[in-house]
Parts: sequence; structure tokens; C-alpha cells
Amino acid sequence: MKKITILGSTGSIGCSALDVVGKNPDRFQIVALAAGENIKKLKEQIEKFRPKVAAVRTKETALKLRKALTVKTRVKIVYEVDGLKEVASFPSADIVISAISGSAGLVPTLAAINAGKDIALANKETMVLAGEIVTKLAIKKRIKIIPVDSEHSAIFQCLEGSKRENLRRIILTASGGPFLNFTDNQLKKVTLNQTLHHPKWKMGKKITVDSASMMNKGLEVIEAKWLFDMDINAIDVLIHPQSIVHSMVEFNDGALLAQMGVPDMKIPIAYALTYPERIINNIAPLNLAKVNNLEFYKPDTKKFPCLDIACKAGVDGGTAPAVLNAADEIAVQAFMQKKIRFIDLPKIIEKVLNAHIIIKNPSLDDILQADRWARMETQKTTERMIL
Amino acid sequence: MKKITILGSTGSIGCSALDVVGKNPDRFQIVALAAGENIKKLKEQIEKFRPKVAAVRTKETALKLRKALTVKTRVKIVYEVDGLKEVASFPSADIVISAISGSAGLVPTLAAINAGKDIALANKETMVLAGEIVTKLAIKKRIKIIPVDSEHSAIFQCLEGSKRENLRRIILTASGGPFLNFTDNQLKKVTLNQTLHHPKWKMGKKITVDSASMMNKGLEVIEAKWLFDMDINAIDVLIHPQSIVHSMVEFNDGALLAQMGVPDMKIPIAYALTYPERIINNIAPLNLAKVNNLEFYKPDTKKFPCLDIACKAGVDGGTAPAVLNAADEIAVQAFMQKKIRFIDLPKIIEKVLNAHIIIKNPSLDDILQADRWARMETQKTTERMIL
Repeated sequence: MKKITILGSTGSIGCSALDVVGKNPDRFQIVALAAGENIKKLKEQIEKFRPKVAAVRTKETALKLRKALTVKTRVKIVYEVDGLKEVASFPSADIVISAISGSAGLVPTLAAINAGKDIALANKETMVLAGEIVTKLAIKKRIKIIPVDSEHSAIFQCLEGSKRENLRRIILTASGGPFLNFTDNQLKKVTLNQTLHHPKWKMGKKITVDSASMMNKGLEVIEAKWLFDMDINAIDVLIHPQSIVHSMVEFNDGALLAQMGVPDMKIPIAYALTYPERIINNIAPLNLAKVNNLEFYKPDTKKFPCLDIACKAGVDGGTAPAVLNAADEIAVQAFMQKKIRFIDLPKIIEKVLNAHIIIKNPSLDDILQADRWARMETQKTTERMIL
Repeated sequence: MKKITILGSTGSIGCSALDVVGKNPDRFQIVALAAGENIKKLKEQIEKFRPKVAAVRTKETALKLRKALTVKTRVKIVYEVDGLKEVASFPSADIVISAISGSAGLVPTLAAINAGKDIALANKETMVLAGEIVTKLAIKKRIKIIPVDSEHSAIFQCLEGSKRENLRRIILTASGGPFLNFTDNQLKKVTLNQTLHHPKWKMGKKITVDSASMMNKGLEVIEAKWLFDMDINAIDVLIHPQSIVHSMVEFNDGALLAQMGVPDMKIPIAYALTYPERIINNIAPLNLAKVNNLEFYKPDTKKFPCLDIACKAGVDGGTAPAVLNAADEIAVQAFMQKKIRFIDLPKIIEKVLNAHIIIKNPSLDDILQADRWARMETQKTTERMIL
């Protein structure tokens, strides 16, 4: 019986993870959950999965949650960063699913690693912000970080049984998002509603916007750099609209391995929880003859500049990726509040990066400080742009 | 330094293998070679690679070869089955590349396994005829059989680092050959010349005809059954005209791994020789954005009945696959002598199989006997058809 903690249980990944857990009650047990403000969903999850402890964002939410619980349960309800850390390091957990959205996932994930837990990593910001700190700590604590992102899970699977020194290149695939074939003129006018309709993956809102702008792929390049210890320039991106090939690796001899499957996050989530085992699920198998056609293109980085902006931040290193990520979070917020246009996203993010003085080999404090600075700077930049 | 013996050194695979060896003189050394009648090529190979022993088919050829050698070399020249066995079991070899074409490859490959050599297996007939005997002997002798066929090498690579119990399905890809989109009427009229022009792979003549008829894929299904211990009904075939995905495996959780690359046999040959290492080569890397499109179709088994005929023989087991293979070798010979039409191939092979009384759990003698019987029966069937 594997004991599981989920950070971000009411989000898209958290819910899929609980679905996997619920279908395999003989294998998995939930011991701790952390969510933000979604009391309704968290209440249901607590009553179904009976964790020992649950965290929410504020004391107020914690009180509301306590009142809302109808089934008798001894769950301990905690809140704020200390509560989140308590959940992340809950003693009996074997593995922690890190699925909080955004840079808020970093601190609890580090707490989980410090407590010696294996990590099923869905929060890519952990690696984007603090890849070096996280990977070093993981080695020191002798814990495994198993990626949950479909792309990184694909690469992880392709590299099982391969020697690292034989790896030449990583090829991340990208669906291209809803605007793949839009003209520059069409891109100027895209609406929030259009942006939130991803052609292949059902995901949270922020990552759906990032997928449309290709920033998501840029963040994934940085994540891949740290997860697989690769130079950014040995990580390629290919547009693959069918989202069947989840990513690939190329070896020294020119052979490639690709991981494929239907686009369903429950597959990489279950893999991260059962690795090195795989469990049978009720997902319809991939029928390649029916898919018929797998296409691959070079990404158009002129139309979607966020990919290059992110890769440059990845190469620059230090605090640059933290600034990249924070600027993106705030700019996407502004876009979701319909304050800026879709094509303003890369402009704002680039401006903020240009205004940042990179700190090399940053401490966690340097990173969190850069994150805060970038949020304020992005606010200001956005406001100036709106005026 | 890995010491290598090549059975079938003057054939397509043998020459590619020597090319790989020649480019890596610090890694590989040739200790023994076996060929048939191609004295000119074997002479060149002996003078370049300096094996200790070389086998040819007949005493007469051996004498001619001795005369032909101009460079002073102490190579021992042997002949006939005993000579072939001497080469196959040459003491100092670490690995034997089994690349003789057709059922003639079986006996020397068994000799190599009996002598405790690892096998780089390009001769699929070894597994088609005697899969059970060969796999049992390999376990007993604790030797590794590493496939060289691009499809089986692909599967082998996909399964590295995976647990066998997680494997659900093997998917062999097939280019579809030169007649993929031919109508029934067009198929009736195809010429030998058309048949020998494979769209993707440069190979020996017999296998090129087999690729056009899909018999090659059928033989590969049987080979895969034994190499990977899979039921025939868990081995699918998909037409993939680009020949970029060399084959795939599907795991219990619905995830697939595919091995890809440019269609160049030097990649799987080198892999079999260096496994678990990979070596850098001068083959241009795969550019998927340039390939652009990977297509997959169900095979048309009405137009190409050989695939189903072979799978049925594989399911029937016993001596059926040996008969299938022998009938195909003789029928293809008749086609290459322009005695029969392309569409007669499956008809003849099926007739011979129907006339055969299968021996279950056959000994090697039973198999060789069935092989001889099938050759005669196919001759007769062919002659009757021509009349």
C-alpha cells in the first residue's frame, strides 16, 4: 500500500490523481491533502479518501471547511504556509504529488524533499525557479523525482534502461495550441475564450493560456534541463498537433525513442505513482491506424516568441527563469482579466526580463525575492502598457 | 576489443556489419567469416579484416579462394557444413552475427549458441524454424540473442528497462512495400523488376520480394513471438510507409514506446554489437520536421494474404513455420526465375501448408525434415501450376 500526499488536490492534476487512487484502493492510500480555497471539492475529497490532515490557504477557509464537513472524520485541518509544509512533510507519506499551480508550489515541494519523500512532480515551476537547488537536495536526500507532465514523463520512460551518456538530444513535442495556424493579424484579435479552448488537453486555465502562447513549452524546456541534466541547446521542440507522441529522446547512434499514447493525464499520473510498475486502466488504447497521421513541424518562434524568450532565460540561468515565470503568471492574470491582448504577453515578459539584474547561483531567498520583484515589475509594466 | 564472427559476410547485412567494424577498429576485431560463393568480395574482406578462418560453400570454391588471395595471410579456409560450423563456433569470438539468408542459417546459428557465443541475429529463419529449440538452448547456454532486424531491434530497445509483465502488445511496422496502393488488377501484372525496387530499404533480393508480398512481415511476427515470448495474437502489424518508426510496444497502462530513426541497417547492426552501449556514427540524424508526416494504416490482408498465412502457421506452431518458410523460399525462387506471377506466391505457399501434417514439439531433425519435404512439395506445386 503506497501512502500518498497531494499538494493541490482540487486542481486538474489533483483530481485526476484522486481518480487514479480511487480506482486502485488496494494499492494507494491518501494520507494528506492540500488545496487553496475550493472548500466544496476538498470536503468531498476528505469524506471520500479520509486523509489524516488537510491544508487550506487561510484560517478562515479552514474554519469554513470544518463546518462544511458532514461525515464524521478526525482529519486535522491546517492552513497558511506552515499548514502546507505540515501536509508536504506528513510523516507516513511515501510519495508527494506536487500539483499546486505556479511558483507557490516550490516551497512545499522543497519541504517534502527535505522530509525524504519521493516526488511526483506536476509543478514545473519547482524546477523552473530552483532546478539546481531542488536537484541537489534530491540527491542529498536520496529521493526520486518522477515527472508527471506528459512530456517529461515520456522522456523519463524513454530513458528507463538507457545510459545517460548515450543521450544526445531531447525532443519535446508541443500540440501548437489553438492558434497554431493563425496569421499575425488573427493573433492580434484572439479572445480569452478562444485561448481557453485547447484542442487536445483539458487542463487548468493558466497552463492552457501558456500552451497557446508556447510559454508552457518554454517552461518545459527549462524543467527538462534540470530533470534530465541536459543543456538547453540539446533540447528541441517540435510541433505535433495530434498530441500522440508525448516526447522523444535521441541517442548517440541516431536512434530515437518516443513515448506515445492517448492524451490522458491519468496515464503519466498513474505511472509516477506506480513506477517502475505499470497498472491496467480503463482508458481506451491508442489506435494508430485510426489516428492515421502524425505530423511534425518546426515551431514558428516569430509568431510565438515566448518559446525563445523562455529558452534564453534558461540559458541565462540564475534568477532569470524565476523572473520569467513570475512575469508570465502576472501577465497571464492580466490577460485573463482582459486587461491586455494575447500578443502583449511576450512583450511584457521580455520587458521585465530585460529590466532584471540576474543573480548567479542564487539561494532560495534570492529566487523568492526575484519572484516577488518580477511580480511587481510586471504589474507596473502592464499598467504602463494599458495607459 | 570485441571479437566478431560473421556468418554471411558477403550479403547485405554482412557487408553493412563489416562497414561498422571497419569504422570502429578500436572496438571490434573480425576473427572468422563465412560466405557462400562470392569469392571476389570474400577475398577483399579477408585481406582487409584478416580473420583467422573463413568458410565457403564447397571445396572447389575454397580452392579458388586460396588462389585468389594476393595479400599474404594465414587465414584457414574451410568449407561445407563442417566448415561453416567451425566458423560459427570459432573459440575466440565473443559474438556471432548470424546473417546467412534463409533456413541455411539455422544449423550454424545453433552451433554458435552451443559454443556459448552471443548472437546478433539477422537470420530470422533461425527463430521461424526452431524458435522453441533456439530460445531454450540460449537460456541453457546463458547467451544473449540480440536482434538485428530493424523491427526487432526496435522492440528490443523499447523493452530495455521495462518489465516483461508490463508488456501488452507488440506493434510491428511495415513499409507496405512497392505495391501498397496497387489494385488487384495491377498486382496481377507486377514484374520482378518492380518487385525488387523497395521504396525504403536496400536489402537482399529474397527479402525484398518477401517485403513486397508481406511474407517478410509474417516471418517477423513469428520471430517476434519467440524473441519476446509473446502470443501471435498480441503482435499487431501496422503499415507505415515512411519506415521511420521501426516498431513499437504497448504497455499495460496504454503507454507506447516507439523506436525511430532513418532507415539504415547500420544502426541496428552497430547496436547489436555494442549493446548496451551505443556508438556515434556518421549517419545524418533524423529530421522529423523534414519528414513531416508519419502515416499508419491497417494492412490489407486480402490484397496481401501472406501476412495472415504466416500468422496462422505461427499459431499452428510445430513444423508449420518451417514449411511456411521453405515453401516461400522455393516459391520466391520460382518468381525470380519468372516462372510464376507475384500473386501466385500466397496460393502456392498455402497449398503446401495445407498438404503438411504438422508435427508438434518437433526435434531439430523433424524441422529439417519438414523443411526438405516442403521444398520438394513446393517444387511440385509450382510445376503443376505452370503446366
